[in-house]
Amino acid sequence: PTDDISAERRRATFNVEELAHILSGGSDKLERRLRLAKEMALTSWGDKSRRHFLTREEEYVEALKGALGIWEKMRKEKLSFDEGSVMRYLLDMPGGLELHIGMFIPSIMSQGDSEQQSKWLPLCFNLSVVGTYAQTELGHGTFVRGLETTSTYDVKSQEFILHSPSLTATKWWPGGLGKTATHAVVMARLIVEGKDYGPHAFILQLRSLETHLPLPGIKVGDIGPKYGYGGVDNGYMSMEYIRIPRENMLMRFAKVTPEGKYIPPPPSNSKASYATMLFVRADIVKNAGGVLSKAVTIATRYAAVRRQTAVKPGDRETQVLDYQNVAHTLLPLVASAYALQFMGEAMMDKYHQFEADRDKGDFSALPELHALSSGLKAMCTWITAEGIERCRATCGGHGYSRLSGLPTLLQNYVQNITWEGDNNVLCLQTGRFLLKAISAMHQGQKNPGGSVAYLAAASEEFKAKCTATCAEDWSQEKVVESALRHLATRLLANGFRELMVAGKGKLVTDGPAWNANTVMMVRLVKAHCLLVLFTNMMGYIAQLEVKKAVGATTTTVLRQLACLFALTQVEASYMGDLLEDGYMTGAQACMLRSSQRSLLVELRPNAVPLVDAFALDDYSLNSALGRYDGDVYRAMLEMAQGSPLNATEEGPAWHNILKPAMLSVPSSKL
Amino acid sequence: PTDDISAERRRATFNVEELAHILSGGSDKLERRLRLAKEMALTSWGDKSRRHFLTREEEYVEALKGALGIWEKMRKEKLSFDEGSVMRYLLDMPGGLELHIGMFIPSIMSQGDSEQQSKWLPLCFNLSVVGTYAQTELGHGTFVRGLETTSTYDVKSQEFILHSPSLTATKWWPGGLGKTATHAVVMARLIVEGKDYGPHAFILQLRSLETHLPLPGIKVGDIGPKYGYGGVDNGYMSMEYIRIPRENMLMRFAKVTPEGKYIPPPPSNSKASYATMLFVRADIVKNAGGVLSKAVTIATRYAAVRRQTAVKPGDRETQVLDYQNVAHTLLPLVASAYALQFMGEAMMDKYHQFEADRDKGDFSALPELHALSSGLKAMCTWITAEGIERCRATCGGHGYSRLSGLPTLLQNYVQNITWEGDNNVLCLQTGRFLLKAISAMHQGQKNPGGSVAYLAAASEEFKAKCTATCAEDWSQEKVVESALRHLATRLLANGFRELMVAGKGKLVTDGPAWNANTVMMVRLVKAHCLLVLFTNMMGYIAQLEVKKAVGATTTTVLRQLACLFALTQVEASYMGDLLEDGYMTGAQACMLRSSQRSLLVELRPNAVPLVDAFALDDYSLNSALGRYDGDVYRAMLEMAQGSPLNATEEGPAWHNILKPAMLSVPSSKL
Ligand SMILES: Cc1cc2nc3c(=O)[nH]c(=O)nc-3n(C[C@H](O)[C@H](O)[C@H](O)COP(=O)(O)OP(=O)(O)OC[C@H]3O[C@@H](n4cnc5c(N)ncnc54)[C@H](O)[C@@H]3O)c2cc1C
Ligand SMILES: Cc1cc2nc3c(=O)[nH]c(=O)nc-3n(C[C@H](O)[C@H](O)[C@H](O)COP(=O)(O)OP(=O)(O)OC[C@H]3O[C@@H](n4cnc5c(N)ncnc54)[C@H](O)[C@@H]3O)c2cc1C
Repeated sequence: PTDDISAERRRATFNVEELAHILSGGSDKLERRLRLAKEMALTSWGDKSRRHFLTREEEYVEALKGALGIWEKMRKEKLSFDEGSVMRYLLDMPGGLELHIGMFIPSIMSQGDSEQQSKWLPLCFNLSVVGTYAQTELGHGTFVRGLETTSTYDVKSQEFILHSPSLTATKWWPGGLGKTATHAVVMARLIVEGKDYGPHAFILQLRSLETHLPLPGIKVGDIGPKYGYGGVDNGYMSMEYIRIPRENMLMRFAKVTPEGKYIPPPPSNSKASYATMLFVRADIVKNAGGVLSKAVTIATRYAAVRRQTAVKPGDRETQVLDYQNVAHTLLPLVASAYALQFMGEAMMDKYHQFEADRDKGDFSALPELHALSSGLKAMCTWITAEGIERCRATCGGHGYSRLSGLPTLLQNYVQNITWEGDNNVLCLQTGRFLLKAISAMHQGQKNPGGSVAYLAAASEEFKAKCTATCAEDWSQEKVVESALRHLATRLLANGFRELMVAGKGKLVTDGPAWNANTVMMVRLVKAHCLLVLFTNMMGYIAQLEVKKAVGATTTTVLRQLACLFALTQVEASYMGDLLEDGYMTGAQACMLRSSQRSLLVELRPNAVPLVDAFALDDYSLNSALGRYDGDVYRAMLEMAQGSPLNATEEGPAWHNILKPAMLSVPSSKL
Repeated sequence: PTDDISAERRRATFNVEELAHILSGGSDKLERRLRLAKEMALTSWGDKSRRHFLTREEEYVEALKGALGIWEKMRKEKLSFDEGSVMRYLLDMPGGLELHIGMFIPSIMSQGDSEQQSKWLPLCFNLSVVGTYAQTELGHGTFVRGLETTSTYDVKSQEFILHSPSLTATKWWPGGLGKTATHAVVMARLIVEGKDYGPHAFILQLRSLETHLPLPGIKVGDIGPKYGYGGVDNGYMSMEYIRIPRENMLMRFAKVTPEGKYIPPPPSNSKASYATMLFVRADIVKNAGGVLSKAVTIATRYAAVRRQTAVKPGDRETQVLDYQNVAHTLLPLVASAYALQFMGEAMMDKYHQFEADRDKGDFSALPELHALSSGLKAMCTWITAEGIERCRATCGGHGYSRLSGLPTLLQNYVQNITWEGDNNVLCLQTGRFLLKAISAMHQGQKNPGGSVAYLAAASEEFKAKCTATCAEDWSQEKVVESALRHLATRLLANGFRELMVAGKGKLVTDGPAWNANTVMMVRLVKAHCLLVLFTNMMGYIAQLEVKKAVGATTTTVLRQLACLFALTQVEASYMGDLLEDGYMTGAQACMLRSSQRSLLVELRPNAVPLVDAFALDDYSLNSALGRYDGDVYRAMLEMAQGSPLNATEEGPAWHNILKPAMLSVPSSKL
């Protein structure tokens, strides 16, 4: 197998190193990442050799060790926040501090007033306290306004009284809440003088800092094992009339005065909280590309060294990547990984641009960015979650082994389609935005701008026809983009019409008529996101060209990937839509399929080079099948030795279970 | 939530009990199953209360305990083989005896001669030996002829010498091989006097029956953790020139005489082995429906009691099953579960019919049945594997909890798409059969019969047009069946043409031209299977009607399900195909979608009753979300208490890991 993979590398038509530097944000960043990986592999807390064999409890302990190891290394070596993130990415083991870093500190920074910040942030950074973010309850996740936990202001003592009034009010899911966190930002309905002001944020101490035991009145624990994410102690908590000082309400926006007067948040509050969501979703989009890259690196390298059966009976066995059905699964996923990585970068850029505008008081980009990031969060996490499973399945039997790395990758990833907004719910939010955009145009607005700028030409779109005259035309940017634009515009316009009819001329965005069309809405949002992903990727490539950042052979390959990505999505989900209104003919549909298959052939020689360009080191992959050197079988056998079941030759069931049950026979009988 | 689910049950338009009896094969069978479940729940080996919390080693031990518990109960109470199967299904915990029961014993029964059977079978049934089936190697799974392990006949000693000549020859995957099995049926290339006769089966003792230690020259162990299936010790093994007596070659078909003469198997051998495969695949098809039923029972019941957000702001929160997007996921999966269950029954009937024919020397049905079972194995396992994940995702956050039962169900199921023939590879086999059938017709054969009988009308099919004139037409059996038939016929005819052109007038079924069309082949096989599934379900319903087995309200609902199943499959994958050649118009495509949505509304009141009819008891579901009584939140909280992380209040990391890392502050600072 090692020969096969070297041979693959010699087939590259482009400069892999050059592309690797671009994808890693520069050669220095790449080098730093690889160096950190080497260093971590040598530490006790970063060693991954037993990773596949841990029990849930060990996983929890090891994940915490890892997080604390990084914390300590950053402190000692004065490393940057960015380097910390890189290390957490490399360690790839979410644990009890996830929410401390990702939500507790950010909540205080964004929602605490300056006094609260100067009190709590040093405690956070010194790890004098460990926090989490407790919003979701057993009975409420998506519908935040339905939260039941109350925080009632007692003007006499100037305290809030936190309380869980029912079983379903039990906090449920917060990461680190189970056994790690000493504190939490708790979302609870603020009640002042009998009036309910809805959910607000409060800091609550959960556990004694000396004994780590829960404080009186607080029941807290781990919610039990999950599909993945075993290192994190997602927790439950119920509170029985717990008193906290007034100062523990996060008061940057809404306030309660000592005398019990509620001061509502200024409008900027909702904008600020949208901004936070924007950041989180942009980060998820970025991450989706990174995770999918891992999965396709593993599966593509393995498919290049796995030989099974021969295409022509009697010949040497075929590398399975040469089976059309395998290539047809993996190469589009490689293409998706590129599309997602470029989208992630763009989302982050847009976020930073927004921050700069915001600091000048300009919030105008927010609605569009919010809609865009919601839709893309859904689209990209779906692509990645499904993509990992397809990678796994395509590896055949060995993909089912945890040593391949793929099962764990999937199990630790797939909640991304649910958290930070369930994907369907997010699509519906984006859908409402798109409908409003088209509605505004309907009412005379000229240019909607941003990611919906293409709607400006909506009215012409209905007459548009596909111009492809041969299969090759379908690998041209213009032809593909036109089709995607037509698709998104038409689905949106149809949706708009339906919901106008349902509202008898007034656009409906809730109620039964809305609910009778959500399936259609989700589909059209995906079509919109597909267009965004494609144009973004093509735009990115054009930029590389302008900047002369890579050679022409590289951009050729990247353009092939972009087309393959788009055609595969269309082929899987939207052929009917493009045929239905006569945009394309049956013959053009055949050409599309044929173009997609040709792209597989054209891209095949670059398959391994393209995943090499992600520059994922063996440490971060931790996969017997995804190794850079292709020596997969030796790795499987060596790693398997470490299985805890192999601790004894007889195995853990022999003496007490198996032997007593087996009827002995004289060995002469055998 | 308990009120919600009772209210759902009152909405049933059909007699649930009646349908439950049909699905369970009679009220007596159902009662027996429920009784066995009750009895098992009370045993130490059948108790599931800690099931979600086991480590891999515990899982292995518990699974073995469970299997042995069943064995013992069967012996003591003289239960039938069928009752044993039911108990294994109820226990739902595959373990170290899977292959002993499922492959070792059957191999001896089907491939051993009578002497071998009378020697080994009693040992098997007494559990004096525990066997497995060792075919797959590190380097070869799909391609059995590529196996490297050798078995060389030594005429002097009248022994075979088993040997693993390379790293990739290491046996890999056999269930129970790791730490449980004492014996194995080993597939190895038979070599007699330097001549290689390809893979044959040999019985090898692996471990001492006294000490359970591996015999000299044998390296054997567990292959490590997997995505799921943790209770099974899939193993590896390499052999260094191990001698076994000549009598240990399974000699019912091929033989080696003491003098070293190879006697090839009669042609009936390959037929017999096809028959075995047929049985296994029919069993997988049957199982697919059972497993999907579990998943949809859990998700549907939960979606009926989960209330989140309100369709109309201000109203009572909506049962999430009332969101169109949720119904659009779950109801078609309920429909699929029905389609798969009916198909499973039919496959088993066909298998038994074949057995009866075979005993009269009639093997004529074999090729068609083999093709059918291969394609359906692929189609049904794909539907179930994807379906479980969709059920899980649709439950939102709680679906990610192992307490929902869905993650484990998925992880223990998904290898069904890989083993007993990788799904893509199986589709290609079926594809070859379909091509041959159409080719035979091309050469003048009139009626291909069986599952391809519809091809008789192939030539007229090209002129056929969809007759739907309104959405409701798409919920008529005839309209749907015509569309599916057209789809399958046209895809197949197109495929045939392509492969005739590629072969310049001679049908190509291997080589590069074949490999350039495998994606298309897999698609067309799925379309064929879709037609089979639909017509089978409709046929089954018609039978029920003829037999007056259920009331008219029941068959109405079942017909709605069949149409929903078919329309959903078409909508997801084949809209383009039906539009491409003008079979349906754009308007008819809209009608199809609209009909699908109407079916969701029509079936909605019967959602819970329909899953209740699967009659899955709480013991076999073992799910906090799928409980019959709908009391999901209490169940989640109670089950979570058992999490091993909750063994101490401080958790396993406090004393050694977390406390030392936290910088203490005087509590006055908080
Ligand atoms: C691993 C993990 C970690 C988490 N960590 C945290 C944490 O640290 N802190 C915290 O507070 N929470 C956390 N959560 C909770 C998470 O935020 C919620 O699970 C998530 O928001 C989804 O909400 P839900 O579970 O209520 O889903 P539900 O809303 O119950 O969704 C169920 C189904 O209903 C559908 N649905 C719901 N509403 C609508 C609607 N209006 N229209 C159409 N369809 C609808 C959904 O699409 C879904 O299919 C975590 C969850 C997970 C899985
Ligand atoms: C949980 C589990 C339990 C098992 N138990 C046993 C057991 O008890 N005993 C035993 O002997 N084995 C066992 N196996 C092994 C199992 O039979 C093989 O894994 C299975 O046959 C698939 O073969 P493979 O792994 O070689 O896949 P590969 O053939 O390597 O497949 C890799 C990829 O190549 C593609 N591919 C391969 N050949 C072709 C072709 N000709 N045309 C097109 N595409 C192709 C496949 O579609 C797949 O995507 C088990 C496997 C699993 C996962």
